[in-house]
Amino acid sequence: MKKFGIGLCLSAMLFTSVAWAAEQPLKKETPPDLYEGTPDWYRAVYKDNVGLREGSGPFKDYFKPQMLDMYWQPNRHYEPMKNLDHSIFIEKERRDLCVTCHEEATPGVVRDWRSSGHKNPKSTPYLSARTSEIEKRTNRILNEVHCFDCHADTKTKQIRMPTGEVCGECHRPQFDDFLREREVGRPNHVQSWEANTIVPWYAEAARRGYLYGQHGCDLCHSGAEKCDVCHTRHKFSAAEGRQPEACITCHMGPDHPDAESYGESKHGVIYHKEEEHFDFTRPLSEVRPGKDYRTPTCQFCHMYEKHGRFIHNPVMKGIWRMGTIPPKNLEYTSSLKDYPYGIKIISDKIDIYSEENVAKRSYWLEVCAKCHSDRFADTYLKSLDEFMFQAHTLADRAQKIVEDLIADGYLYPSAADRDPYPLSDGIEKQLSPAFLGEPIYNAFKTLKGKFPVVGPILGVYGMFLQQQDNPSNIENMYNRLWFWYKLQGYKGTAHVQQDVSWWWGQAPMMMEFTKIQSEAARLRREGRIEKVTLTK
Amino acid sequence: MKKFGIGLCLSAMLFTSVAWAAEQPLKKETPPDLYEGTPDWYRAVYKDNVGLREGSGPFKDYFKPQMLDMYWQPNRHYEPMKNLDHSIFIEKERRDLCVTCHEEATPGVVRDWRSSGHKNPKSTPYLSARTSEIEKRTNRILNEVHCFDCHADTKTKQIRMPTGEVCGECHRPQFDDFLREREVGRPNHVQSWEANTIVPWYAEAARRGYLYGQHGCDLCHSGAEKCDVCHTRHKFSAAEGRQPEACITCHMGPDHPDAESYGESKHGVIYHKEEEHFDFTRPLSEVRPGKDYRTPTCQFCHMYEKHGRFIHNPVMKGIWRMGTIPPKNLEYTSSLKDYPYGIKIISDKIDIYSEENVAKRSYWLEVCAKCHSDRFADTYLKSLDEFMFQAHTLADRAQKIVEDLIADGYLYPSAADRDPYPLSDGIEKQLSPAFLGEPIYNAFKTLKGKFPVVGPILGVYGMFLQQQDNPSNIENMYNRLWFWYKLQGYKGTAHVQQDVSWWWGQAPMMMEFTKIQSEAARLRREGRIEKVTLTK
Amino acid sequence: MKKFGIGLCLSAMLFTSVAWAAEQPLKKETPPDLYEGTPDWYRAVYKDNVGLREGSGPFKDYFKPQMLDMYWQPNRHYEPMKNLDHSIFIEKERRDLCVTCHEEATPGVVRDWRSSGHKNPKSTPYLSARTSEIEKRTNRILNEVHCFDCHADTKTKQIRMPTGEVCGECHRPQFDDFLREREVGRPNHVQSWEANTIVPWYAEAARRGYLYGQHGCDLCHSGAEKCDVCHTRHKFSAAEGRQPEACITCHMGPDHPDAESYGESKHGVIYHKEEEHFDFTRPLSEVRPGKDYRTPTCQFCHMYEKHGRFIHNPVMKGIWRMGTIPPKNLEYTSSLKDYPYGIKIISDKIDIYSEENVAKRSYWLEVCAKCHSDRFADTYLKSLDEFMFQAHTLADRAQKIVEDLIADGYLYPSAADRDPYPLSDGIEKQLSPAFLGEPIYNAFKTLKGKFPVVGPILGVYGMFLQQQDNPSNIENMYNRLWFWYKLQGYKGTAHVQQDVSWWWGQAPMMMEFTKIQSEAARLRREGRIEKVTLTK
Repeated sequence: MKKFGIGLCLSAMLFTSVAWAAEQPLKKETPPDLYEGTPDWYRAVYKDNVGLREGSGPFKDYFKPQMLDMYWQPNRHYEPMKNLDHSIFIEKERRDLCVTCHEEATPGVVRDWRSSGHKNPKSTPYLSARTSEIEKRTNRILNEVHCFDCHADTKTKQIRMPTGEVCGECHRPQFDDFLREREVGRPNHVQSWEANTIVPWYAEAARRGYLYGQHGCDLCHSGAEKCDVCHTRHKFSAAEGRQPEACITCHMGPDHPDAESYGESKHGVIYHKEEEHFDFTRPLSEVRPGKDYRTPTCQFCHMYEKHGRFIHNPVMKGIWRMGTIPPKNLEYTSSLKDYPYGIKIISDKIDIYSEENVAKRSYWLEVCAKCHSDRFADTYLKSLDEFMFQAHTLADRAQKIVEDLIADGYLYPSAADRDPYPLSDGIEKQLSPAFLGEPIYNAFKTLKGKFPVVGPILGVYGMFLQQQDNPSNIENMYNRLWFWYKLQGYKGTAHVQQDVSWWWGQAPMMMEFTKIQSEAARLRREGRIEKVTLTK
Repeated sequence: MKKFGIGLCLSAMLFTSVAWAAEQPLKKETPPDLYEGTPDWYRAVYKDNVGLREGSGPFKDYFKPQMLDMYWQPNRHYEPMKNLDHSIFIEKERRDLCVTCHEEATPGVVRDWRSSGHKNPKSTPYLSARTSEIEKRTNRILNEVHCFDCHADTKTKQIRMPTGEVCGECHRPQFDDFLREREVGRPNHVQSWEANTIVPWYAEAARRGYLYGQHGCDLCHSGAEKCDVCHTRHKFSAAEGRQPEACITCHMGPDHPDAESYGESKHGVIYHKEEEHFDFTRPLSEVRPGKDYRTPTCQFCHMYEKHGRFIHNPVMKGIWRMGTIPPKNLEYTSSLKDYPYGIKIISDKIDIYSEENVAKRSYWLEVCAKCHSDRFADTYLKSLDEFMFQAHTLADRAQKIVEDLIADGYLYPSAADRDPYPLSDGIEKQLSPAFLGEPIYNAFKTLKGKFPVVGPILGVYGMFLQQQDNPSNIENMYNRLWFWYKLQGYKGTAHVQQDVSWWWGQAPMMMEFTKIQSEAARLRREGRIEKVTLTK
Repeated sequence: MKKFGIGLCLSAMLFTSVAWAAEQPLKKETPPDLYEGTPDWYRAVYKDNVGLREGSGPFKDYFKPQMLDMYWQPNRHYEPMKNLDHSIFIEKERRDLCVTCHEEATPGVVRDWRSSGHKNPKSTPYLSARTSEIEKRTNRILNEVHCFDCHADTKTKQIRMPTGEVCGECHRPQFDDFLREREVGRPNHVQSWEANTIVPWYAEAARRGYLYGQHGCDLCHSGAEKCDVCHTRHKFSAAEGRQPEACITCHMGPDHPDAESYGESKHGVIYHKEEEHFDFTRPLSEVRPGKDYRTPTCQFCHMYEKHGRFIHNPVMKGIWRMGTIPPKNLEYTSSLKDYPYGIKIISDKIDIYSEENVAKRSYWLEVCAKCHSDRFADTYLKSLDEFMFQAHTLADRAQKIVEDLIADGYLYPSAADRDPYPLSDGIEKQLSPAFLGEPIYNAFKTLKGKFPVVGPILGVYGMFLQQQDNPSNIENMYNRLWFWYKLQGYKGTAHVQQDVSWWWGQAPMMMEFTKIQSEAARLRREGRIEKVTLTK
């Protein structure tokens, strides 16, 4: 887990009185910067605009971006329109023409905007107060936030697709909170485009002709620099962003079944039955549990920071993170023992009893205790820990079976007879020993990727890309166990959804274990027979 | 893709002023006919009523209909009630008795009808105008549409279950639009009962004792001749039919995950959050995007015909159709190269750049551009094409693995040692060379089905029926890849739902490819070992 | 199916006039008892409180309860809080302090209660009438039901977590109805904790370190003794309990996809579209189909007892039960023929034409006929029977393949070379021949579990626990067929949801059959080769 020192003086209170804003130091001297605090080479491969000519990240030479990355990662990949040059309108600041034309061209968008707080930023006392804060912070009068304000790049005279940096000009506290995700480490939102492009299988798949198969990857991972993932354009409603549905288009599925597990839990069911009585216009910090919300939302729990304060950063209190990283405090039998054996791009084992995590746990208890007894909440969260310990133990047992099979020479076809690890000709050229860790770096350098890689996190490539005989089925069985099913069990248990916990989590883990065990027994049997047959 | 010339003069405007109806030529001389435009033999095996005595379609001798087909395919299979003869009521035209008895017998139905437009066809100005059109078209005064009007077959003096033809007596423009689905080709709604009954595995499964296992098939495919699939009885509300939920009972699942992908997309999420503010009483042609609907519905996009007009035919603009048929413009390595090798019952390869499809694409862009920029929409749809090209390429690679395995003699058990292709004793008797294509016809005639059939579309039988060792697991693995997972990826991408696109589409395609590759390697290894063992 | 004679004089009318209550004999002499009517040894292993020191059920020595079982099975496992002794408040009956403290400590709960009928039991005429019945029945005046009334155990001076017995003090008719589930037999709610703890794999998994993996099991099975599974605390609203969502947190997933199948059926879709117009404040017996509900709910069908009466017991009309038990009336080829070969813990084959089941069927028809014709409803339910007959026939064919494989000595690794059946060292010690049946008892006694167990119901262990090579993959394939997919097909068909019926039911059954067939062919081939290889 790479942590970047950011050193911003952040306000923990998102929504507070107007007086608050006035007391803040004006930050005009440091414009919002999504890549602030990143290593030097980042800016060159993530932020510097190249349109669709080149890729992003360390492996940019191995893949061309998808056409849609223009809209999804606009900082790096946006290209101005060619068929209609808007520069004349921008140069002349013809703000009037935007709506005049687009009322015809894209009426839905214009109507959306008309009903938004941008069109009428002072239509209610609450909105007025918020707008007033922004006015003070930015030294501007805001009677209407107009297409032009977000979409016109007055320097280049081109239309731009707004990123968080554009939004952050006015919504700076939210932007700064968002940026603080880097402090917590991955997985998070702000680094999700990095997460895509820094793994070799993503570039390898693109190189092998499956770039557009990764449509789904990029669509979620566009959350790295755009705010409309949660606050849909062109309403950009805070109230919308407070509703669980704002999260679900990304937060569902095998890797993080949050929508399914929350949605079908008692919390989610009550929310669904009573959502029309929930008051989403209230800022989170003013929500009265049992009155404004009868049950918590994603946002209420995950954006609670501590001591009654909320933060525009839902990963802040993450302890188990995505559920992929094995914990300390267990006796491992497989190579998980020495994990992450020097790899620097991934996190060390999780110590859920670290000082930091114990503190996070206490903040979770503060949230739960709004409705549940301390003991109940504490017992619940401890049970989740136990679930995770047992799930990682089961994964370790399974990994041992696969690793022993390989060590005994029964992998078929063998690593020597199949394609190497993805991008094995690119990894050691692009990534340094310091980044990869010496052992991994050397393995790529000497073996050219002709070795099996099993288990979290590098082993997950088998879910993303199939090369010639690599991975084989037993490796992917294990991928399904530790990644797909373990994560279902994790989120089902964490969100109190029994079906997800058991039938899509623990039970399929067990059944996948069965498959692995039978497959390993067969590979050994076949290997033994083949040897006898050929030598006789 | 069999196209039937229909030659009707159709109105493209469904909802227009009263004046419009008056100008239309009266169509009383040609009563609505669901099988208009079909080959001669169709009527004899699809429309002629046989109750439950015989089956439908070319293989009618091999299966008896399910009992429920009486209600689901009433034209062919309905049987009058035996325990209560209603003919006396019909003969005497005792309209009063329907409600009198059924208010007791089936009160829910009667209450439903009371709240419907049929009970009060002039209760609002809008409804009045629509009713007036019908009155002019049919030369009738309509102050109440009564049980008797739809359910009494005055010729036979029997109760009937209304089909589209009955509805079409009044709702002729909608009926005619619906019929135009034949022009577009399969898959569509109007031929969905044909689609069931024309494939040999359906009849074979019935013959082998799994007729009622096909419950789910028939329940969807009853959409061929009944309107209450979308407009539920006995309200038959147009407003209900305009809501996405009208589609989902059929349009979900592995073959067309429309409900899942739309429902969990940003479009769907916004719909779900704001549906109470959507005005479904407005005809589609009058809907103002961003005002009446903040986000599009199934109907708004799929029933948009072109140039601002809507049509009661949701397949009209289909380009990729169901996603099963491979496109032109790709280099195939497997037998997909020569696909469909003379088979006439299935479509030729799709040319997405045909004049017809280029025109359809332009109509899609018209819809998208109500909210999105032309360039964005165009880029999105081109990306979908790219996704499909890559998915079909992956399927081709997988098909090649399976075909090579078979060609090299490693299928186990071999085609000679297992059951033949479904209904191999029936196909060539029932279907002509002209219908099947010479090669396929001859294969059935000479080999009696003792040959493997892999890939779209005839290979899909393995998802429907398991015979003795046919298909084998590797054939079904491939079925899952090209049918189940490719179609998920298609619809996930088409409906902008990242999780469906990736985690239920592309990722499982890759993982299934792994399975196929490992299974093929094993079958070859086992075959080699067996050969050596036996010959030593 | 073990039936316990209960011999209570139960009222079948749940909701009736106040006069009714007055006429009932007061039942104060027999306090509500969840374990009334169970065998003698039950109380000692299910009811007697042991906190978290010991387990529940016959195998209590083999597992320790989860921490959360304290809250989920409070009768047996609750432990008083240690960090804050509430006994002083209870002793002094300081009712005032509950709210005073908890308004701060857990404000959500307090606000929930304030909006409940417990806080204001006479706020409406309807509620007043119900409260008056309770007052008469219990000889108490009820102006407020207070924290203290449910949570204070005045005997032990300790806080208690209320079970159904506590609720039953006031809500006796509902409690008695609930208890009548024992009459119908398992699966049911009232015995769901027994169902968990009486099967050996549950205890074996706990013993092997996967106790917390069973989180999902216990969370559903806590419905055995708590009412807040359906009426969520601290509102305990009857109206909430009447809504389908009250059921879904448990009733979803592979074993009983009720939420999915109802929810996506036309019934469910109409419910979803029109739920805001449903009047859930009306007792079920007063609901007017087509007016108060346009479509049925879970509760309306499953809590309908007969002749217009409703009962607080949703399993009352169950015929096919969970769909796991094979029916009479079929010719079996596998060992299902002699099933349950003397096992007493599971049900005998289902005779759907028994007098009892024929009567139940007639009550189902009464419900359906509120909206559908008798013939339609009858045809539908007969079709469901046919579906089930065919599904069980398919399962029988598959079981035969697995059993023949084992009989011919091709299971790999063999039963002798792998772990025994779960808890084989515990079963015959804890359970008597009378309970297990002689053959099974003897098998455990002599073979110590070193024999394969395939098929319903004992074979399901493979979905719950993986031991060393037991089960093997082919056994679990069959588990998926008969348990996972057959049950999907069952509920999809029963709830008129075509996708669940076909694509998650019948089609995967067929595809799993393919896998079993290919796997059996391979195991035989490998066994033959191994034999030849070793003997040459």
